[in-house]
Amino acid sequence: MNQHFDNTPHKRLNILTGEWILVSPHRTKRPWQGKNETTHTLKKIAHDPNCYLCATNTRINGKINPDYKNTFVFPNDFGAILPDNEKFNYNEGLLKAASETGICRVICFSPNHSETLPDMEISAIEKVIEVWQKQYKELGSMPNINHVQIFENKGAIMGCSNPHPHGQIWAQQSIPNEVLKKTEKQLAYFSKNNKSLLVDYITQELELKERIIFENNTFVSLVPFWAVWPYEVMILPKRHIEHVGLLTAKEKTDYAEQIKVVTQKYDKLFDTSFPYSSGIHQSPTDKEYPEWHFHMSFYPPLLRSATVKKFMVGYEMFGMPQRDITAETAAKSLKAL
Amino acid sequence: MNQHFDNTPHKRLNILTGEWILVSPHRTKRPWQGKNETTHTLKKIAHDPNCYLCATNTRINGKINPDYKNTFVFPNDFGAILPDNEKFNYNEGLLKAASETGICRVICFSPNHSETLPDMEISAIEKVIEVWQKQYKELGSMPNINHVQIFENKGAIMGCSNPHPHGQIWAQQSIPNEVLKKTEKQLAYFSKNNKSLLVDYITQELELKERIIFENNTFVSLVPFWAVWPYEVMILPKRHIEHVGLLTAKEKTDYAEQIKVVTQKYDKLFDTSFPYSSGIHQSPTDKEYPEWHFHMSFYPPLLRSATVKKFMVGYEMFGMPQRDITAETAAKSLKAL
Ligand SMILES: O=P(O)(O)O[C@H]1O[C@H](CO)[C@@H](O)[C@H](O)[C@H]1O
Ligand SMILES: O=P(O)(O)O[C@H]1O[C@H](CO)[C@@H](O)[C@H](O)[C@H]1O
Repeated sequence: MNQHFDNTPHKRLNILTGEWILVSPHRTKRPWQGKNETTHTLKKIAHDPNCYLCATNTRINGKINPDYKNTFVFPNDFGAILPDNEKFNYNEGLLKAASETGICRVICFSPNHSETLPDMEISAIEKVIEVWQKQYKELGSMPNINHVQIFENKGAIMGCSNPHPHGQIWAQQSIPNEVLKKTEKQLAYFSKNNKSLLVDYITQELELKERIIFENNTFVSLVPFWAVWPYEVMILPKRHIEHVGLLTAKEKTDYAEQIKVVTQKYDKLFDTSFPYSSGIHQSPTDKEYPEWHFHMSFYPPLLRSATVKKFMVGYEMFGMPQRDITAETAAKSLKAL
Repeated sequence: MNQHFDNTPHKRLNILTGEWILVSPHRTKRPWQGKNETTHTLKKIAHDPNCYLCATNTRINGKINPDYKNTFVFPNDFGAILPDNEKFNYNEGLLKAASETGICRVICFSPNHSETLPDMEISAIEKVIEVWQKQYKELGSMPNINHVQIFENKGAIMGCSNPHPHGQIWAQQSIPNEVLKKTEKQLAYFSKNNKSLLVDYITQELELKERIIFENNTFVSLVPFWAVWPYEVMILPKRHIEHVGLLTAKEKTDYAEQIKVVTQKYDKLFDTSFPYSSGIHQSPTDKEYPEWHFHMSFYPPLLRSATVKKFMVGYEMFGMPQRDITAETAAKSLKAL
């Protein structure tokens, strides 16, 4: 490892977005006098009569959830994007706006109100991956849907209003900013080298072994060199595949194992049900994107303990992301668990 | 106003960064079952013996604060960037990093432990602006400092570890991502039109009067058309000036009045000491930037009340920023106060 990384403030390049992040390894010594989050130890109940995601319960719009046994997908009753809007374009001087259409869905991962991903059997996580595959294909082939964003907000600290294990999908007409950036960088690399940027990246990481968390036959989990969040992790297939729909049966199992291992390590790290937002970045659905290499990222806010998080505030909002512990230190802690 | 803005999901373009944000005006009807922040009503004491920012107190490094009467600037005892590092460049395959150097300072706005910006006299806020001017010039002319970021994190919810009114400066060698984006867009406009992008934007906003919060002779406060945070506000000079150092005496007073009015409105909105991160975007200091039009932005997280904030999580992190209330509705509420 470069001898400076551990003690010298430096910046690192995110090769997927082209943006830099600031690393201040010396700063972990700072005393903490700020906000402590409250942690709730939830009772581990399998069914909560007041939960609108539990099987057989009634949702706010009067619909009754089926008595589902594995996963359950339904339209988000308060979707941020709607399928049928009036279309408009607004282009007045320096003000530019346009209507947006799309579909928002909720995916329950398990009928068990308290069974989060790390608690689930690998075979049950495979069922969640199958839902992602099916949804990506189904939504992606609809008219006016050009991008399918699959994500999970876990924990109250991540704005999640219900502890029942679930994720979301927002599928829409526009291709979001973050995906545009990653398309540009992957396309430039692919056009020049006729190879996936992330395949070459994985090869380098597997040689260096400094940021790898867990590897199986077809997948790898690592703390990316340019990680922003303290314990950010990326799970990615070793093979260049554009989207989750292209996984072989073996890859699906390996991917499920990665999710289980990473989320279990997270829960162990600070001995808490570890909050995060996770998301899958993959090819948009409007055309072929041979340059895209699908990957899943976890952005967890906790920094020092179950109650002290990293705040992405003033400097980070106006300047650039900043982190204290290095990616290598974070990877070492996670790997060891 | 466009008849669709109030009821149709749409996207809006940020002309300063080139990025889009998603607006879901229908979504304010969603019930809130998520996290409530705790609010602390702090005792209004003028001096806290345990505060490391109060006059005459001893800081963690043993240094004693002077008995200052207005503002006080000192080096951040735990700066994220340091002035004297070993320099290095790391460029190994797809991994790119480089040392970063700079200076971090803390600015106390007032010796009074409980006097936040909205409580201060306009003349006292002018003194804070004078510090920003002096610091921008002093730091900006140092070798290896090419950018001076002035910002404030206010409130525990914004990672601020001390309620004593204060801001920060991180001055550094690299020009941060956000500033690079805004430079690019302003330069393109300036090169084409030989005019400041923001002068033309203000002209349009002053005609439309839909997003203006408060106007005086030389300054204006508005909710930008592309606002991300629920009650985001931008304060900007009507005249095209590159940085805070170029203000006339009259402009300095008008700017101070804007800060007072905006922060007072904020405190009134939810009857709480309103948390936010604010920051000044202005020309970097390595060369002339005739295209830059200095402006100050406030990014406050609160959405519905003193305890319910907007979470920028899964979709926002992986896709693009999303908001529920429109910029026009937010401006109307703030203007009315
Ligand atoms: O410098 P402070 O106030 O200790 O720290 C706060 O502001 C910094 C600059 O935005 C952030 O990096 C920290 O995460 C936050 O807690
Ligand atoms: O959709 P939910 O879970 O109600 O809401 C949560 O996730 C959304 C998507 O990231 C965010 O826009 C909301 O701010 C957050 O509270």
